[in-house]
Amino acid sequence: MTGSSGMSFQDVVALNSSARLNRLAGFEVTAAASGTAEIVMQWSDDLTQYEGHLHAGMIAALLDTACGFAAVTKAGNVTASHFSMNCLRPAVGRRFVAKGITVRAGRKQIFAKAELFSENEQGDRTLVATGDTLMVPLDR
Amino acid sequence: MTGSSGMSFQDVVALNSSARLNRLAGFEVTAAASGTAEIVMQWSDDLTQYEGHLHAGMIAALLDTACGFAAVTKAGNVTASHFSMNCLRPAVGRRFVAKGITVRAGRKQIFAKAELFSENEQGDRTLVATGDTLMVPLDR
Amino acid sequence: MTGSSGMSFQDVVALNSSARLNRLAGFEVTAAASGTAEIVMQWSDDLTQYEGHLHAGMIAALLDTACGFAAVTKAGNVTASHFSMNCLRPAVGRRFVAKGITVRAGRKQIFAKAELFSENEQGDRTLVATGDTLMVPLDR
Amino acid sequence: MTGSSGMSFQDVVALNSSARLNRLAGFEVTAAASGTAEIVMQWSDDLTQYEGHLHAGMIAALLDTACGFAAVTKAGNVTASHFSMNCLRPAVGRRFVAKGITVRAGRKQIFAKAELFSENEQGDRTLVATGDTLMVPLDR
Repeated sequence: MTGSSGMSFQDVVALNSSARLNRLAGFEVTAAASGTAEIVMQWSDDLTQYEGHLHAGMIAALLDTACGFAAVTKAGNVTASHFSMNCLRPAVGRRFVAKGITVRAGRKQIFAKAELFSENEQGDRTLVATGDTLMVPLDR
Repeated sequence: MTGSSGMSFQDVVALNSSARLNRLAGFEVTAAASGTAEIVMQWSDDLTQYEGHLHAGMIAALLDTACGFAAVTKAGNVTASHFSMNCLRPAVGRRFVAKGITVRAGRKQIFAKAELFSENEQGDRTLVATGDTLMVPLDR
Repeated sequence: MTGSSGMSFQDVVALNSSARLNRLAGFEVTAAASGTAEIVMQWSDDLTQYEGHLHAGMIAALLDTACGFAAVTKAGNVTASHFSMNCLRPAVGRRFVAKGITVRAGRKQIFAKAELFSENEQGDRTLVATGDTLMVPLDR
Repeated sequence: MTGSSGMSFQDVVALNSSARLNRLAGFEVTAAASGTAEIVMQWSDDLTQYEGHLHAGMIAALLDTACGFAAVTKAGNVTASHFSMNCLRPAVGRRFVAKGITVRAGRKQIFAKAELFSENEQGDRTLVATGDTLMVPLDR
């Protein structure tokens, strides 16, 4: 599952299952190939902050994981060293979709960015946050 | 509990209890006054990433919450608009301590920063991550 | 030139001329409308770091200015509170093109992002850096 | 002047002189040792933005350079991959002092942070911005 070459979709699904928080929160990998990845999470009241919106920690978890899964399709296992996010709108909705993409996959560092969308009952999507992660490849 | 003036320690304890994720993860407010705050969380296998370290989303949750609780002691309720963090070392340990402090509490924006320490069985602390949050006061 | 409504292209050209560093470095506004802006700067040996690449401060100046000019077309005068950038590749070339776009222009805060391209003698462009700026409107 | 071991104060002074923008802006290295560095710059009307404050690009240049010079005392030559800053107050004054310090100097990555102070005619200092830089060692 690891290696200096990139992971397949099935590798990423397995990687997701190996992360306990991802299972607890119900992250589902819906796409992962060629430097891109998509994760879906259903709304859960357990994961909220004091106003009842999705907690900033979970917004970060979704964005960072989408960046990480995009990166592993290019570079095998990675570890994150810097993460930043902009919270644009209240994160509420029926479910959330995080889309990650690598911006540059270098030998020493990998840059990726992600967008988090909330989806309402009608399936309409709203961009609620953006993020980016800088990672170091582990297997090189 | 809200208001344009700052919250007391008891207010912050109540605010923490009102956040479902904070309860799920077991965040405990151990200090909150005069632009500073401290949160403690015991290790839990449920909150890990694929290597068995604390998940980046939980590192973010602890840092961002420490920043937020530092801010509310100065400014009442706030909402985060930007968050960033540096992951310095693997986040493993018996428990975690996050310390937040406001850097500037302005009328329109509040800047705070935080440090996350892991603690081993002997109680020795290691700095594992740093973060900073930019917030907007809600009640002004 | 100011006001709570957005600036025109001519307003942005005048704003650029009013900034001494922008004149010193030779920033030229080539587009500014509807939440987007583009700035061009010719290569100058005066603006380099120790290896002879464009200095990180100038990369920041170009990215932040592109974000700012995108924002003023939506919101009138703004001031930056947070800026971050990723330096993807050495910033060398015949000239540089920075493209900014607003991600969210709210009442209290404006989020924008930008890309910096270097251009070689043949006119081929390479993405060398990305950035994002969080701004506060001054006239609201 | 390069090498995997850290630079001396004289090395850093020479490094500063080798950067054209640093000479143009008048950066002076006033300290550099053991993972810390300090840079001083006199006010110049040439380096301002549209309101007549120090330009965000120059704030970034000072913060990033202070981080970089702190890092080279530990690790020899480095290159910056991520930079972020918070602009806390208008950057005006008689001169500016940037103080950098390494937070973690690892084998693959170096984390540093910096503070920028403005100084008035009486020599009183005000914190106007904070920043942090993630760097990669070049000689390892």
